[in-house]
Amino acid sequence: MAYDQNNIFAKILRKEAPCFPVYEDDMTLAFMDVMPQAEGHTLVIPKFPAENLFDLDPEYAGAMAKTTKKIAAAVKEAFAAPGILIAQLNGAAAGQTVFHIHTHIIPRSQGIDLKLHARELADFEELKRHAERIRKALG
Amino acid sequence: MAYDQNNIFAKILRKEAPCFPVYEDDMTLAFMDVMPQAEGHTLVIPKFPAENLFDLDPEYAGAMAKTTKKIAAAVKEAFAAPGILIAQLNGAAAGQTVFHIHTHIIPRSQGIDLKLHARELADFEELKRHAERIRKALG
Repeated sequence: MAYDQNNIFAKILRKEAPCFPVYEDDMTLAFMDVMPQAEGHTLVIPKFPAENLFDLDPEYAGAMAKTTKKIAAAVKEAFAAPGILIAQLNGAAAGQTVFHIHTHIIPRSQGIDLKLHARELADFEELKRHAERIRKALG
Repeated sequence: MAYDQNNIFAKILRKEAPCFPVYEDDMTLAFMDVMPQAEGHTLVIPKFPAENLFDLDPEYAGAMAKTTKKIAAAVKEAFAAPGILIAQLNGAAAGQTVFHIHTHIIPRSQGIDLKLHARELADFEELKRHAERIRKALG
């Protein structure tokens, strides 16, 4: 499948769609998942048109990892999360629903079962406050 | 919690415990998970004494990401996997059971539910064959 320039994350990168950002640098952007699996659920995406890990430039894979580490620490602090799950789904068969590669950062507090299914939109005012908490933790 | 030098992955890195390796470089090692959630379930670890992402040197986070990309492509090819899940669990509350940071590479073929619970040991002869398939795909 060819990369779709009109997927929602491509639009966010072009600022044609809004998001609740927490961090940005030359190669990556981090923002709140609008269908969070837990409070503080944040996404990291590369500024590179890759559908999945297999299309991604290795330098961007490295940049995503460094941003993920930074944001995960801030999310852990901001939400006093005892555990943090990092997950990245490649292909519909793995549960991927937006076809611009993204890494999930999800606070975890209870056990090991997990559903990564997009369910329902969160309250946007709440997401805005959550993004502010994470940006504050980033310092 | 301080890093435990006697965790099983530390022993594997010191060659005091065996594993079914698929790839190694200066900063990382990849080998078969002995309690796989799916055929081809592979782990990537850094050659760095970190319990989790928060303790990890950022350069090693980048190196893990590059190795993960490489191994994920080989696993996808070797097992004709339509999807690949990348997961990394930080803290017991997120399901972490071995306290040396590791990234899971898991072939996925059906849907989005997931359990990352260690269940039972796989057949070691089979794991050996699986490691060979992945090494062959690496070329």
